[in-house]
Amino acid sequence: MSMSAARGTRERLVVIGGDAAGMSAASQARRMKGPDELEIVAFERGHFTSFSACGIPYWVGGDVPERDKLIARTPEEHRARDIDLRMRTEVTEIDVAAGRVGARDVDSGAESWTSYDKLVIATGARPVRPELPGMDAPGVHGVQTLDDGQALLDSLTRTRARRAVVVGAGYIGVEMAEALINRGYEVTVVNRGREPMSTLDPDMGRLVHEAMEGLGITMVNDAEVTKLLTGDDGRVRAVATEDAEFPADVVVLGIGVRPETALAADAGLPLGAHGGLLTDLAMRVRGHENIWAGGDCVEVLDLVSGRERHIALGTHANKHGQVIGTNAGGGYATFPGVVGTAVSKVCDLEIARTGLREKDARRAGLQFVTATIESTSRAGYYPGASPMTVKMLAERRTGRLLGVQIVGREGAGKRVDVAAVALTAGLTVEQMTALDLGYAPPFSPVWDPVLVAARKAAKAVGQQP
Amino acid sequence: MSMSAARGTRERLVVIGGDAAGMSAASQARRMKGPDELEIVAFERGHFTSFSACGIPYWVGGDVPERDKLIARTPEEHRARDIDLRMRTEVTEIDVAAGRVGARDVDSGAESWTSYDKLVIATGARPVRPELPGMDAPGVHGVQTLDDGQALLDSLTRTRARRAVVVGAGYIGVEMAEALINRGYEVTVVNRGREPMSTLDPDMGRLVHEAMEGLGITMVNDAEVTKLLTGDDGRVRAVATEDAEFPADVVVLGIGVRPETALAADAGLPLGAHGGLLTDLAMRVRGHENIWAGGDCVEVLDLVSGRERHIALGTHANKHGQVIGTNAGGGYATFPGVVGTAVSKVCDLEIARTGLREKDARRAGLQFVTATIESTSRAGYYPGASPMTVKMLAERRTGRLLGVQIVGREGAGKRVDVAAVALTAGLTVEQMTALDLGYAPPFSPVWDPVLVAARKAAKAVGQQP
Repeated sequence: MSMSAARGTRERLVVIGGDAAGMSAASQARRMKGPDELEIVAFERGHFTSFSACGIPYWVGGDVPERDKLIARTPEEHRARDIDLRMRTEVTEIDVAAGRVGARDVDSGAESWTSYDKLVIATGARPVRPELPGMDAPGVHGVQTLDDGQALLDSLTRTRARRAVVVGAGYIGVEMAEALINRGYEVTVVNRGREPMSTLDPDMGRLVHEAMEGLGITMVNDAEVTKLLTGDDGRVRAVATEDAEFPADVVVLGIGVRPETALAADAGLPLGAHGGLLTDLAMRVRGHENIWAGGDCVEVLDLVSGRERHIALGTHANKHGQVIGTNAGGGYATFPGVVGTAVSKVCDLEIARTGLREKDARRAGLQFVTATIESTSRAGYYPGASPMTVKMLAERRTGRLLGVQIVGREGAGKRVDVAAVALTAGLTVEQMTALDLGYAPPFSPVWDPVLVAARKAAKAVGQQP
Repeated sequence: MSMSAARGTRERLVVIGGDAAGMSAASQARRMKGPDELEIVAFERGHFTSFSACGIPYWVGGDVPERDKLIARTPEEHRARDIDLRMRTEVTEIDVAAGRVGARDVDSGAESWTSYDKLVIATGARPVRPELPGMDAPGVHGVQTLDDGQALLDSLTRTRARRAVVVGAGYIGVEMAEALINRGYEVTVVNRGREPMSTLDPDMGRLVHEAMEGLGITMVNDAEVTKLLTGDDGRVRAVATEDAEFPADVVVLGIGVRPETALAADAGLPLGAHGGLLTDLAMRVRGHENIWAGGDCVEVLDLVSGRERHIALGTHANKHGQVIGTNAGGGYATFPGVVGTAVSKVCDLEIARTGLREKDARRAGLQFVTATIESTSRAGYYPGASPMTVKMLAERRTGRLLGVQIVGREGAGKRVDVAAVALTAGLTVEQMTALDLGYAPPFSPVWDPVLVAARKAAKAVGQQP
């Protein structure tokens, strides 16, 4: 190991992690300060930078023709912007007292120290992978990285797989179910929860369940996987729960992710209840003036509940990177928090949510009313008008909007954005009834579904003492 | 004429106008109070109630198969809810002092007085119809009422019309251009303004212009119609401007509308600068405790500029009716105002706007920055991602959002709703950069186009002294 050479007056920014948050931070810091003022060194242990993990299901499903489409910026492109990017180099230690990081070349094993003036931690998340028999068998795949996606695609094309089991029915699970259905597989989704999409209330998850079955996907709820069974060739052949076995030529794990914060924990940096790094609103690690963290490895403030949450989502990671790069580059920016917006689809079914579910609201000590309505995406008489269910939660007494869930077809998903802005602004459902939303027959009924839900919710608020 | 009979303790609500605002008010008042408490009499001079004028272009264009699809509620349905609906009966006078309205049966000519305890004026708007030679010739059509739509359709099917000229390039004009293109016509749009869609700034209108020409529509801008030329058979044969003649087998007028407030003016009720009735926030006509007005005949408060505007739009009319019916029924509701959201399409081109254009902002005394960006509707790598241009106006110094205009393809139009809510809440463009909008590759790039525009606008605000 060798200390970095003397650097004169030029500051050095070290970035750990070469995906959305880390490289956005590096790029934005570079925009703020040129290479004469700021040296930027970034470490990435994998083969790729700045890729869209959210796009993997669409690559596997065939909508995106090739892997490289998912790469927003290659290592070479980053280097062309004067970022000293060290690929296949894993940071193994953060020495906060000395202001340096230890790293190891993944291929050669060579180790080195690099000192920093400013540090960005963007180590991302790792998929939950329960320690069950058979988890490491060939044919069992995660879909977290591009390498994972390639391995799954190879597995699908090399073998005569016809039956796929997806474990988990969150965003990744349902999107992978779509991908595999699109490839012509018989798909079974094994889900621990009462209904798929546990980010929705079960009554709304039920609609997803029914729609998935309508698409020919077999949904198995309330089912805990106990082991994966393998055949004589060692490959996975079935997924077992307490009650049943589901034959599988290929198994995809979509159980969720946890913050990748082992490095940070070893360095004594503050972690929250969900295992993510805790930062201030400028994305500085709490108590550390010159260390920032962002992306899937941090916890974020939920503006509706007032609590920290962990949400692994590329759009947040990009915003974090932008804020961090601005601050690390000597500017000022903040990330005020999230309201928990997410949108997804399974074939033509669109699923969206923002704010609190019923159980989140209860956990936060809030009393609330709910309103669920059915409407259509366009004027009822306009071709392509499709049904949509909107559920809305509003706080008792104040009438403040607490959350919205939408399940429908084309035009349903992004309608949740109206509620996301209303949550951010702290609007009441009564105020929402007067929102001036775009209306024309090809775009909306004369009362937009969100307005219909707001009217019903406002009425329910008024009926509560 | 005869005075109405004694009515005991039962109040009488009289409604003038049987379309969206009037019948929504009547229906909501009925929900609030049963027929034992409140008598409701509604007058409509035409043949229809509660129809969607906004849907007429889609009926003419063939997307909506028949007229009756555009009728939300028939006279019989209203009567079944204990509304004494008098069709083909035109109110000719409002006698405010005596609390009564005079009406004439359109067919028989019979006249009568009806007294009211509470009055709702929902007389709508009338199309602008310049007094030019040839305006009344066969083959010249408005598209304001269902009768107008039927007359146009009859004209289109009866004659061998191949060339259509649309006068006006606002919402109605461009929607009718689409309808006629869809029916296989050669379409020319003659427009007085510099670019089509004068509700957009000209730089954004230019995009509409180019797209319309791409669709095969001939756009003629900066052209004032001077007369309509007729043939030997008396039918229209061309539209003339100062510079040119445009052959036309059929002419559609889409020049805009004015509030229909002659009755109200005769009664001495207060009108605003745009000719619309002036109300308070509960939609009561100013200075008149027991008279409400709503829909296309009123002016509404623009929450961004702080001024009154006239906007004829079904969604506002329905909200007005809801508020009026609640108040007239003894409850309490307000219509706080509009931010000026509108959305439209020409074939697959989507056009949306909310808030102030540059000239509106100047007129309101505001200094501002603008930011225009190009992005896509979905992640760039996802199939169907289509380009979208977003223009944003923000106030100098405060950074408060002032307006957004969007021109794009599928997924562009309803994105304006995010800005509509942000305007309502008074968000700054800097605050908007952190909005938690729904992201997944089929729905949005990782930075939603609205966020990209907000970032650029925020930067522009920061660069201003």
